[in-house]
Amino acid sequence: MPFTRITLLRGKPPEYLKALSDSFHRALVEAFEVPPADRFQSIHQLEPHELIFDRTYFASKPRSDDYVFFDVTIGKPRSTEVKKAFYRRVAELLADAPGVRAEDTMITITTATREDWSFADGRAQMIEQV
Amino acid sequence: MPFTRITLLRGKPPEYLKALSDSFHRALVEAFEVPPADRFQSIHQLEPHELIFDRTYFASKPRSDDYVFFDVTIGKPRSTEVKKAFYRRVAELLADAPGVRAEDTMITITTATREDWSFADGRAQMIEQV
Amino acid sequence: MPFTRITLLRGKPPEYLKALSDSFHRALVEAFEVPPADRFQSIHQLEPHELIFDRTYFASKPRSDDYVFFDVTIGKPRSTEVKKAFYRRVAELLADAPGVRAEDTMITITTATREDWSFADGRAQMIEQV
Repeated sequence: MPFTRITLLRGKPPEYLKALSDSFHRALVEAFEVPPADRFQSIHQLEPHELIFDRTYFASKPRSDDYVFFDVTIGKPRSTEVKKAFYRRVAELLADAPGVRAEDTMITITTATREDWSFADGRAQMIEQV
Repeated sequence: MPFTRITLLRGKPPEYLKALSDSFHRALVEAFEVPPADRFQSIHQLEPHELIFDRTYFASKPRSDDYVFFDVTIGKPRSTEVKKAFYRRVAELLADAPGVRAEDTMITITTATREDWSFADGRAQMIEQV
Repeated sequence: MPFTRITLLRGKPPEYLKALSDSFHRALVEAFEVPPADRFQSIHQLEPHELIFDRTYFASKPRSDDYVFFDVTIGKPRSTEVKKAFYRRVAELLADAPGVRAEDTMITITTATREDWSFADGRAQMIEQV
């Protein structure tokens, strides 16, 4: 159900992008109990003049050119505590692979409702018998 | 009022993209009664390592490289039944042109409010006399 | 807290894009009282067949190829009056620099909640002591 847009500066190799994708999805599975197969993501690589981010706002250390923004739309509400655990887990897993520093990881969550998704076949799978 | 982001793998010719745009907009007009002139869309073509989608999750048949994701923001609420009719109509029209298989068509709807739109001129047209 | 996606036709020089970014952010600061350092934006430049916009719908004059769409996610609610003032200010500032005509400026606002943001460090800064 989640769809995640991942936005970062252009220039990382495909294996780096795959690790970003893998680690973020693993955090969704672990913290939000998303089914492992429920994986949908797009990666948007931008030139330096196309990605504007403050280097220090609400960051423990200055952000680097590895800054990455995850904009995830989820399909049902999660509690504040679960969201906080999710943020922590994203930062931990991305630090492991591909090695993004915690100050470079920014996330925002949008919550849709179950009827707002059609995965395929012209159906609203989350509210229909399948 | 709707703005739709259309995300798919790079490589389709412009006429294919135009048919995607036309068919999706026609479904908005038919199922959501959107004015025909109220048409705003962006198309984001990505490389294979930039678009991650599960091939089988909640799909009647495996998704192909024709997978296309429509992320539409609408300006007022629609009922569950109207949303379901919309999903069906999108799948039907895209099967006709450009010939996308139903299992490759994924949609999510975000609902904004009328005051959240400025179409032009620094005005909030949906809540002001024009 | 705001993250803004800016979508327009490809072909403008970097200094034009910088002026777009500067003016839009200044309107956020002035009308929404966003901290000046709270600046996060991505710019998506598209080919003509990738950006579809009606030339006349709810516009005082026909839109030109300078059409630009701002999709901003904010972190707390604003009143209707404040949103209207924001739209006006965006149009004014963009007319000044880089010189976008008011009919070419389209905006939509999405409102998230404070717990939906992690700026860095695996933390939810808007709801935690920092």
